[in-house]
Amino acid sequence: MEDQNAGKKVEFEYIGTIHTPYKEKHGMPIQAASDQATGTKGIITVFPAWRAGLKDLGGFSHAHVLYHFHLSSKCHLQVTPFLDSTPRGIFSIRGPCRPNAIGLSVLGIEKVDEKRGIIEVLDVDMVDGTPLLDIKPFVPHFDHRDVKAIGWLEDKVQHLPTVHSDDRMD
Amino acid sequence: MEDQNAGKKVEFEYIGTIHTPYKEKHGMPIQAASDQATGTKGIITVFPAWRAGLKDLGGFSHAHVLYHFHLSSKCHLQVTPFLDSTPRGIFSIRGPCRPNAIGLSVLGIEKVDEKRGIIEVLDVDMVDGTPLLDIKPFVPHFDHRDVKAIGWLEDKVQHLPTVHSDDRMD
Repeated sequence: MEDQNAGKKVEFEYIGTIHTPYKEKHGMPIQAASDQATGTKGIITVFPAWRAGLKDLGGFSHAHVLYHFHLSSKCHLQVTPFLDSTPRGIFSIRGPCRPNAIGLSVLGIEKVDEKRGIIEVLDVDMVDGTPLLDIKPFVPHFDHRDVKAIGWLEDKVQHLPTVHSDDRMD
Repeated sequence: MEDQNAGKKVEFEYIGTIHTPYKEKHGMPIQAASDQATGTKGIITVFPAWRAGLKDLGGFSHAHVLYHFHLSSKCHLQVTPFLDSTPRGIFSIRGPCRPNAIGLSVLGIEKVDEKRGIIEVLDVDMVDGTPLLDIKPFVPHFDHRDVKAIGWLEDKVQHLPTVHSDDRMD
């Protein structure tokens, strides 16, 4: 039976912009991490139409930020991750070249200015000018898991602080 | 200065379908949670073009699953959450009526069949037939945070097990 979702698309609107110190996509930190949070500051600007939605966000110390990996032009279904030397399936890695180029990062929230549509954030790991798609409050009760396995990352994740992005995900 | 992202849109493609026991959007669990994981089983089917990307996903016990809240037609910037009685800004709640209707859940991974494009998952909290947008491996090293504040949810989150969805997010 044909799946009713097959071949269908959905359109989303940019609702703001994430400003960071990273002007180029190469040489960036590859993932904001819990115990190596860089503290790197960024500014999210939210376009006027959506600013009323910022109410109450300032009460949360962290948020999931969803964005468009707008510089990723090609998609490979298997790619060698920055942390590895073996090609892995794209759904087992977090890199930017994905079937749908949606990025997800947990950022620290420093300050929210509803009226001006400005959020001061910490631990940014995306390129300057990245288009914002959504912000969701981070709640450990919903978002933490008692994880049993992290696959190919098991003996790789400790190398995270020394690895930066290069051109393999272009 | 005009923001170059203002007014721009991006199109994403449905890459599969999430099958769950929830045939209607009302009366569902409102959020898969770490300590109240329901164990509710679901099946994600991935369309043929993307199946090669499933390699290595089976090594992970959990994944972030991104999907389209395809039944959410209207968007309110402030809404009263299922867990609360006060209107809150949409970026401080997790509900489906959002400027961009993208859903995010952490699901348990039971089994991945790359060839057939089938993933058996646990703790589903979305309606049957939900269109899949992305899957990312869940890695505590990247995804857990030492959270200081959860805003309006502070004295509400313990009521999670007794609350189900209704029509306020329609």
